[in-house]
Amino acid sequence: MTFSVTILGSNSALPTTKRYPTAQVLNVSERFFLIDCGEGTQLQLRSNKIKFSRINNIFISHLHGDHVFGLIGLISTFGLLGRTNDLHIYAHSDLETLLQPQIDYFCNDLGFKPVYHHLNTKEPETIFEDKSVTVTSFPLKHRVPTCGFLFREKQKEPNIRKEAITKYSLGIADIVKIKRGEPFFDSNGQQIYAGELILPPPPPRSYAFCSDTGYNPAMIPVIKNVDLLYHEATFAEEHKELAKKTTHSTARQAAEIAKEANAGKLILGHFSSRYDDLSVIENEAREIFPETYLVNDGDVWEVK
Amino acid sequence: MTFSVTILGSNSALPTTKRYPTAQVLNVSERFFLIDCGEGTQLQLRSNKIKFSRINNIFISHLHGDHVFGLIGLISTFGLLGRTNDLHIYAHSDLETLLQPQIDYFCNDLGFKPVYHHLNTKEPETIFEDKSVTVTSFPLKHRVPTCGFLFREKQKEPNIRKEAITKYSLGIADIVKIKRGEPFFDSNGQQIYAGELILPPPPPRSYAFCSDTGYNPAMIPVIKNVDLLYHEATFAEEHKELAKKTTHSTARQAAEIAKEANAGKLILGHFSSRYDDLSVIENEAREIFPETYLVNDGDVWEVK
Repeated sequence: MTFSVTILGSNSALPTTKRYPTAQVLNVSERFFLIDCGEGTQLQLRSNKIKFSRINNIFISHLHGDHVFGLIGLISTFGLLGRTNDLHIYAHSDLETLLQPQIDYFCNDLGFKPVYHHLNTKEPETIFEDKSVTVTSFPLKHRVPTCGFLFREKQKEPNIRKEAITKYSLGIADIVKIKRGEPFFDSNGQQIYAGELILPPPPPRSYAFCSDTGYNPAMIPVIKNVDLLYHEATFAEEHKELAKKTTHSTARQAAEIAKEANAGKLILGHFSSRYDDLSVIENEAREIFPETYLVNDGDVWEVK
Repeated sequence: MTFSVTILGSNSALPTTKRYPTAQVLNVSERFFLIDCGEGTQLQLRSNKIKFSRINNIFISHLHGDHVFGLIGLISTFGLLGRTNDLHIYAHSDLETLLQPQIDYFCNDLGFKPVYHHLNTKEPETIFEDKSVTVTSFPLKHRVPTCGFLFREKQKEPNIRKEAITKYSLGIADIVKIKRGEPFFDSNGQQIYAGELILPPPPPRSYAFCSDTGYNPAMIPVIKNVDLLYHEATFAEEHKELAKKTTHSTARQAAEIAKEANAGKLILGHFSSRYDDLSVIENEAREIFPETYLVNDGDVWEVK
């Protein structure tokens, strides 16, 4: 099952010719969860061949323009493409106040309903759940109320060993019971060891999005053991004071979070336009957390 | 003196990977007049190396999203870049109502003032004038109130012939008078023929922007003899009924306007995404008006 994140934009507030402002899509078996929506997101979705109709949920971390200015254009385009499915938008409550008047003015005859879900910016909360994934929002530390998002696959049922189906002539009713964890007895009334019947399911994968935020160890319990962590690294340590003042993180701080959270891999983005050479960001983080990589627009990161 | 238009976006409502939504900049001696501002305009300005600080006037033809969604991002970026000059925005009065709440929310500490000029969408009006150019708005024919814009250079003073300066020992006071058209007498009291003293100035150049609009012959007197005419050609004649229904133009209709207006050259844009091959648009227009060209994003058209 696909579980990967595509980077649509990876710059901080001032977009460049190479990096759009923040936006990502998480692909969960070809259903797409959009995370943030900076200006040009719809163009990047097209460039990356993401089907617009597969996006039903948009998660907005906070209401700074570089994370949200692409939303009205995307909604307008959804409308022109004849969308009818509800569009769920998870964001600070102010978004509805700001966005809806624009929708009312610019997108008349919109064939679908934007459904606003107001984020709890004070404590972690499960905000979305379906059969295969849960999404938890949690507070970040920024100049305005901001949430990170944790996407976690649900634990799958074990798989039945093919050879066991033949050996014990398992029917569908047997398989359902075995998958549920009930004991199985063969035709002689002998209980069969579970390991002979089932293969353990793959462990559930998880992805966390943490941007924008200053150094925020409070979130570590929420993202503990995450497989793939995206964390902002707007600055290098040489601009630590500026990071503090603007409540952004340095690369070292991001790496410290990844280390403390025991993350599988750390990917960094939201770079300040002041760095022509980003190796300073990469090297600084790798000193603390070797499994660190810088993202580029168009990257696809598989969660493993 | 430069007088050219750079195409930043040339598609109709649905942007593609090759064509952004509508935006152009007219370069008048390295001062830039922005015309419309679809999503991604700031990215296209960067790609085309246009200095943001040289843009002081923005002309918005009408309030459909594909002509205006890039404005809030551009204004936000102007603010982050430390702009202090007033930014003049010429648009339908509703824009102020829609845009200002977003500016108030997203662009706090904005170091400059957006100055709104409400367009007269009923009749032609001179809306901007400085020492070298005048801008006239005029009504187009669309589903919402829409204006075209005519940019016209002012008549320059004649140049003094170098050989006349030597021959008649012309001082600055003489030159000023001759340029004004006053008679000049040599040391013998003989009046000198003006043609011996001056070179005629180049004729003033003009550029007209007409998008979005249905077939609109009412504007012909305003744009009569324009050197370069940009006209929308959303459709080909095969979709004439659709053009009528949506108050857009076919390529043939655009060409008829160019012919009737005695334009020097016609450039077409705002193409519907339905045409994979745009030669149908080009060929159709050229049958009526041979000097027709299709624009592409990134094109620079000199006005001659």
